[in-house]
Amino acid sequence: MHRLSAQAERLVELALEEDLALGDATSEATLDPAAAGEGAFLAKEDLVLAGTAVAARVLERLGASCRFGRGDGDRVRGGEEVGTARGRVTALLAAERTALNFLQRLSGVATATRRAVEALAQGGGRTRLLDTRKTTPGFRLLEKAAVRAGGGTNHRLSLGDGILIKDNHVAASGGVAEAVRRARARAGALLRIEVEVVDLAGLDAAIAAGADLVLLDNMDDAGIAAAVARAAGRVRLEASGNMTLERLPRVAATGVDFVSMGAITHSARAVDLSFELR
Amino acid sequence: MHRLSAQAERLVELALEEDLALGDATSEATLDPAAAGEGAFLAKEDLVLAGTAVAARVLERLGASCRFGRGDGDRVRGGEEVGTARGRVTALLAAERTALNFLQRLSGVATATRRAVEALAQGGGRTRLLDTRKTTPGFRLLEKAAVRAGGGTNHRLSLGDGILIKDNHVAASGGVAEAVRRARARAGALLRIEVEVVDLAGLDAAIAAGADLVLLDNMDDAGIAAAVARAAGRVRLEASGNMTLERLPRVAATGVDFVSMGAITHSARAVDLSFELR
Amino acid sequence: MHRLSAQAERLVELALEEDLALGDATSEATLDPAAAGEGAFLAKEDLVLAGTAVAARVLERLGASCRFGRGDGDRVRGGEEVGTARGRVTALLAAERTALNFLQRLSGVATATRRAVEALAQGGGRTRLLDTRKTTPGFRLLEKAAVRAGGGTNHRLSLGDGILIKDNHVAASGGVAEAVRRARARAGALLRIEVEVVDLAGLDAAIAAGADLVLLDNMDDAGIAAAVARAAGRVRLEASGNMTLERLPRVAATGVDFVSMGAITHSARAVDLSFELR
Amino acid sequence: MHRLSAQAERLVELALEEDLALGDATSEATLDPAAAGEGAFLAKEDLVLAGTAVAARVLERLGASCRFGRGDGDRVRGGEEVGTARGRVTALLAAERTALNFLQRLSGVATATRRAVEALAQGGGRTRLLDTRKTTPGFRLLEKAAVRAGGGTNHRLSLGDGILIKDNHVAASGGVAEAVRRARARAGALLRIEVEVVDLAGLDAAIAAGADLVLLDNMDDAGIAAAVARAAGRVRLEASGNMTLERLPRVAATGVDFVSMGAITHSARAVDLSFELR
Amino acid sequence: MHRLSAQAERLVELALEEDLALGDATSEATLDPAAAGEGAFLAKEDLVLAGTAVAARVLERLGASCRFGRGDGDRVRGGEEVGTARGRVTALLAAERTALNFLQRLSGVATATRRAVEALAQGGGRTRLLDTRKTTPGFRLLEKAAVRAGGGTNHRLSLGDGILIKDNHVAASGGVAEAVRRARARAGALLRIEVEVVDLAGLDAAIAAGADLVLLDNMDDAGIAAAVARAAGRVRLEASGNMTLERLPRVAATGVDFVSMGAITHSARAVDLSFELR
Amino acid sequence: MHRLSAQAERLVELALEEDLALGDATSEATLDPAAAGEGAFLAKEDLVLAGTAVAARVLERLGASCRFGRGDGDRVRGGEEVGTARGRVTALLAAERTALNFLQRLSGVATATRRAVEALAQGGGRTRLLDTRKTTPGFRLLEKAAVRAGGGTNHRLSLGDGILIKDNHVAASGGVAEAVRRARARAGALLRIEVEVVDLAGLDAAIAAGADLVLLDNMDDAGIAAAVARAAGRVRLEASGNMTLERLPRVAATGVDFVSMGAITHSARAVDLSFELR
Repeated sequence: MHRLSAQAERLVELALEEDLALGDATSEATLDPAAAGEGAFLAKEDLVLAGTAVAARVLERLGASCRFGRGDGDRVRGGEEVGTARGRVTALLAAERTALNFLQRLSGVATATRRAVEALAQGGGRTRLLDTRKTTPGFRLLEKAAVRAGGGTNHRLSLGDGILIKDNHVAASGGVAEAVRRARARAGALLRIEVEVVDLAGLDAAIAAGADLVLLDNMDDAGIAAAVARAAGRVRLEASGNMTLERLPRVAATGVDFVSMGAITHSARAVDLSFELR
Repeated sequence: MHRLSAQAERLVELALEEDLALGDATSEATLDPAAAGEGAFLAKEDLVLAGTAVAARVLERLGASCRFGRGDGDRVRGGEEVGTARGRVTALLAAERTALNFLQRLSGVATATRRAVEALAQGGGRTRLLDTRKTTPGFRLLEKAAVRAGGGTNHRLSLGDGILIKDNHVAASGGVAEAVRRARARAGALLRIEVEVVDLAGLDAAIAAGADLVLLDNMDDAGIAAAVARAAGRVRLEASGNMTLERLPRVAATGVDFVSMGAITHSARAVDLSFELR
Repeated sequence: MHRLSAQAERLVELALEEDLALGDATSEATLDPAAAGEGAFLAKEDLVLAGTAVAARVLERLGASCRFGRGDGDRVRGGEEVGTARGRVTALLAAERTALNFLQRLSGVATATRRAVEALAQGGGRTRLLDTRKTTPGFRLLEKAAVRAGGGTNHRLSLGDGILIKDNHVAASGGVAEAVRRARARAGALLRIEVEVVDLAGLDAAIAAGADLVLLDNMDDAGIAAAVARAAGRVRLEASGNMTLERLPRVAATGVDFVSMGAITHSARAVDLSFELR
Repeated sequence: MHRLSAQAERLVELALEEDLALGDATSEATLDPAAAGEGAFLAKEDLVLAGTAVAARVLERLGASCRFGRGDGDRVRGGEEVGTARGRVTALLAAERTALNFLQRLSGVATATRRAVEALAQGGGRTRLLDTRKTTPGFRLLEKAAVRAGGGTNHRLSLGDGILIKDNHVAASGGVAEAVRRARARAGALLRIEVEVVDLAGLDAAIAAGADLVLLDNMDDAGIAAAVARAAGRVRLEASGNMTLERLPRVAATGVDFVSMGAITHSARAVDLSFELR
Repeated sequence: MHRLSAQAERLVELALEEDLALGDATSEATLDPAAAGEGAFLAKEDLVLAGTAVAARVLERLGASCRFGRGDGDRVRGGEEVGTARGRVTALLAAERTALNFLQRLSGVATATRRAVEALAQGGGRTRLLDTRKTTPGFRLLEKAAVRAGGGTNHRLSLGDGILIKDNHVAASGGVAEAVRRARARAGALLRIEVEVVDLAGLDAAIAAGADLVLLDNMDDAGIAAAVARAAGRVRLEASGNMTLERLPRVAATGVDFVSMGAITHSARAVDLSFELR
Repeated sequence: MHRLSAQAERLVELALEEDLALGDATSEATLDPAAAGEGAFLAKEDLVLAGTAVAARVLERLGASCRFGRGDGDRVRGGEEVGTARGRVTALLAAERTALNFLQRLSGVATATRRAVEALAQGGGRTRLLDTRKTTPGFRLLEKAAVRAGGGTNHRLSLGDGILIKDNHVAASGGVAEAVRRARARAGALLRIEVEVVDLAGLDAAIAAGADLVLLDNMDDAGIAAAVARAAGRVRLEASGNMTLERLPRVAATGVDFVSMGAITHSARAVDLSFELR
């Protein structure tokens, strides 16, 4: 049996319930409930695969078995078979759409991530791609895993596994130094502290306050380059805001440690896969 | 309090849990837990709004209040305020990202739908836009509502509120006539029966079998026009497959009753909205 | 493993929890927890069987296995064995009562339905028996399946898979024509529209408005016959209200398409079945 | 807000979900979502009321308010108003059927119980009516409360709040004395022990073993009378099996402490109540 | 598969979710996800074992298997192996801490209980040790079972499987006689009634009212002895309040039927067990 | 309304269900369901308070209100009132035990933590007290908050918000350098990496591998001092294993950064608090 996080398990349950709340009227009317069959998942375009475990779990919850020959992170060519499923035909048909909906979306995220990682590599290869919290509600862990499958690095997974001090936090604390001090005192001993800044003065203050990372918000390429020079390795730097595939090589060329992009999760196009009964 | 379907309520719960499973480490460390505040949701580009109830519910579940001045289906210009929220600052900051993630995605669906509906209108205005079951898992009812907000018409919401007989069902029944007969006998008295066909011979058989609708799968514009002529009003027709914004006026010009597009839900780009604390 | 709808699965869970919230004090005190056994489900009177999957699932959730030799919809004579179960004796005894409570109730619904279907057949055989939404809360899908097992036809399963326009909807819309128009515009493309009327004028208006079905509310046999004549096949007709077994042949003789009866679900007597350990 | 047990709360949730899984297609299409209204629950026949809290909770979960002027256990005449509800008309119409389904079933149980209690009273008035575990799955606590509303006494509520030693337990323990000893050692200090017997020899053994109650299974009136004489007050006695309204006075005349009847819960006819919007 | 109560199952789920909400970052980074392994649970001190089923279930939920060679209630020496587990190494490491947290706490309860039971035995051996409702929230049934494993007897498991009339109930009823009468009328037929008293006058009143047990609240040894003499076997007696291991033999020497101690559940020290991968 | 994490909310639900699964038999029999009352929470010994929000939530879920005048982390003297509650008397009595069970346990954790923090302070004051994952299953976040209330610092909250590389991870990776490299590549950008070692050679390797923290497992005071000297500030150090209150000042005197103790959560004695109805 494929094991998912408790969150993903509940999402699969929701997904099946929304489609099957009243049963599958067509199959119940026309198919032999005992008839068994098998089918294959096929890529219909070139893609980076992700979401195989959750897609398999959809099948399994309806009593079918499912096995993916290709794994998350694999590059797949259009036309290739990526997995197979066996079980009652009624189960295969009831699960098909939901399994594909997961697979197409998550492979879409992995594919978009891979493309961005490759664009960064053109700028020198040192800069890593980060994701954000701009994920599909309920899909956080699944999309974060798809980002890793595409070659990206996760930023924090949630509001609880990392400290990111923004302007509101600084204002409420009476300054960045005090905000960082409070965070150090309160947060778990294994969390790093990142501070968001908009200019070099902010960067200086964040470094002085003892930040582990600094997020450079909406700076242009020159600004990022200046920040890299100013930090001089004393702190890790993340550039964020208005990132496009076309711009990524130039940003990477600044030598910034990380670039983050919301679009790889919130606006990735679903890639095309199908399920064919044999 | 905003009322959602039980499904949407569970999705909101999942979404908040995935982000807050370990609390909000930054706010807990740096903010006064009793401090109150307010903020506004702003459109950052032209869009058709959707998802206001679910976004509001995210705020409410964390104890804040939320009110949208603009409603689902409204056209909003970039720069306009669409809603406001009040409550503890810690709650506003904890809810902000999740509320936006819902709002941006669902408004993205409504906006994409509106664009497609307008494209169809250029073809004569009689043809209605249908959605599909290619929705984000867990978001079925929310995305179907966003489609309506955008001016589209829903196809079935699930496998249980409509009969759609495809090739596998026909094969298992020994013919389309028998498949329709079985469906008629078994399905609820208020469900219509649709049959998927790939050519005019299939259309003839479906009409003879007593189908209420016929889905024309992957036909080109000429094929659709021929089907419209052949059906001559005896059955409603839906055209599906490879629909693009550019092609829609031509398809509408055939006079087909419905056109369905998966892309309005599975690949809609998230539109840009922000939440600004005042 | 027996597969149930998510709803039925949750109902089984509720049922076992209410009986076993504090454990099974007697069996835990007196039985060997490792002892295995088997038993049989026996009909104690003539009946139409229903609910076998849910009864089996009760056993399975406690770790026993269960197999029914007779299926839903089968006529069974008093004294016949309908199924067997094996497993730990503590599990069999803990599940027995709950399994029987499901089986007796649902077979009661199927048996009552069969009786009504037979009464309709005496009137000519064309009229089909419909159920209603007057079902046991939580048992909707189970009782609807039991109705089918008994030979009945389902009306809508829920408020979402069919349109039934009643007086309040007409009043709020400013007339039946507008109500039907709104329903057509808003509802899914695969739903039929039914309008409830109390007299022939209402029937005329409903037909003019484009209703697919008309519900004749509380009409006597002569009124139903008049409606059948007036409709003249332009619309399907359902007769509802004050239906008794004795009256059904006369109603069927009017040639009405459907008769609906709440009593087959809300007041069916539980039929007698037992479980005997061997 | 009406408070229910956690079990009943989950059952209400199930009941609303099964009816509203896909929304209320008719009301959403035809009604103004903001329009408010009110309505009344009316008895359509003489009955003993039960289930008011759960019916009210159904309304409340959809955002309406509900107040019952008559309480559980009240005798109500046909035509009397028993409660009122206010709120959005869409909520009232969405909740109506589910609220009535609860109210009609539970009032049916209370009404059937009252009738049996009155029959016992004709036999002398000392004998109390007990219910059984033959309840509707998921409705255990609700139906047990309806039995109390009707004047009956509850037997155990579950397998965990009472010891009832049957033949299988005796056999596994090697005799009734050992079974009772084990139960005494293992069960909570506040539980009584009942032993099921089929004849006077069994009764003697149960008394000797220290049972607190003895269940006389399927004895005829003479047998029950003989058991009462033999027990001579050393142990409480419960008569069970084949009880009918007609027989109850004769059984009560034997002076037995308790009579138990499954039919008051498993086969009570739903009594007639309606909800009328004003 | 190990079967737990529905409550315990949900607690295990909670426990795994709180530890694995964001996955196991270390194992996912460093281990081969397919590597299998096995390990053993070892006692690190002398103890009475309890909680084996729930600990095993923790492993099983992550896909590992688990078998305990020693059972609940067994005395185990420091150094002995009590069970083994096999499965994917990532699963074993993810489950280890949670399984131990259950096992150490519940064995701690059993060990503390055994010690108190032995102290009572020094006072004559007739007095039984009762637990209370002062249990860890969510662990009621698990800790009650651990008490039994340690040789103790359960008081009621919940507020619903026993009647315990305290001063507030007496005051609201207008006297102990009326309180007992009400309880007799309302409670299930298989529940005993206990009355809490603080002196001999209270004891006399409780006996006169027909109580089955009397709880002697916070009496000293002499007071308990006097109560035993006064009751003279007409009612069972429970002594409660300020019980320590050192005092128990003296209390037992009074001949009181039961002594109850909250500390065996609310303040038992966790005993030391470890899990070692081989 | 008091807001808890979703986990804590589910734990409160479990706790109330386990106690009220069958209702409150005594109160339902003897009390007026409409009678209102109020009561106070009182400390019965000196303690550090914790758990007020969860205790209040228990009351609120049963419809009562609750307000604590003293907050988490406050030192309270025996005899002081810490909070009050108002509502129906039946609700107050039904909630009392569960609210106290939370409050006593969590205040016990805070009190034990404070004691250990004070012992560390005697050794110089620089060393901070860490908790562990040896918490009560289901209580992770609640006990971690109680530790902070007592003046301690949290280690990671779960397996996902920190990297702790132990011997198994090192072995599977083929060395500590590779294990750290893998962790760096895979873990979120905001997580620190800790490596567990048993001697100075291990410490050297961990520092060389780039660890952020090093856990010194089961070293004696001299070993810890030697490690502090060897690390010379290049890495933070945590001492763990066999920590007792008596030993803490000596460990702190070594200048180690952190000391972790499982006993403050797994074996804290419940402190004494009561709830008195007025």
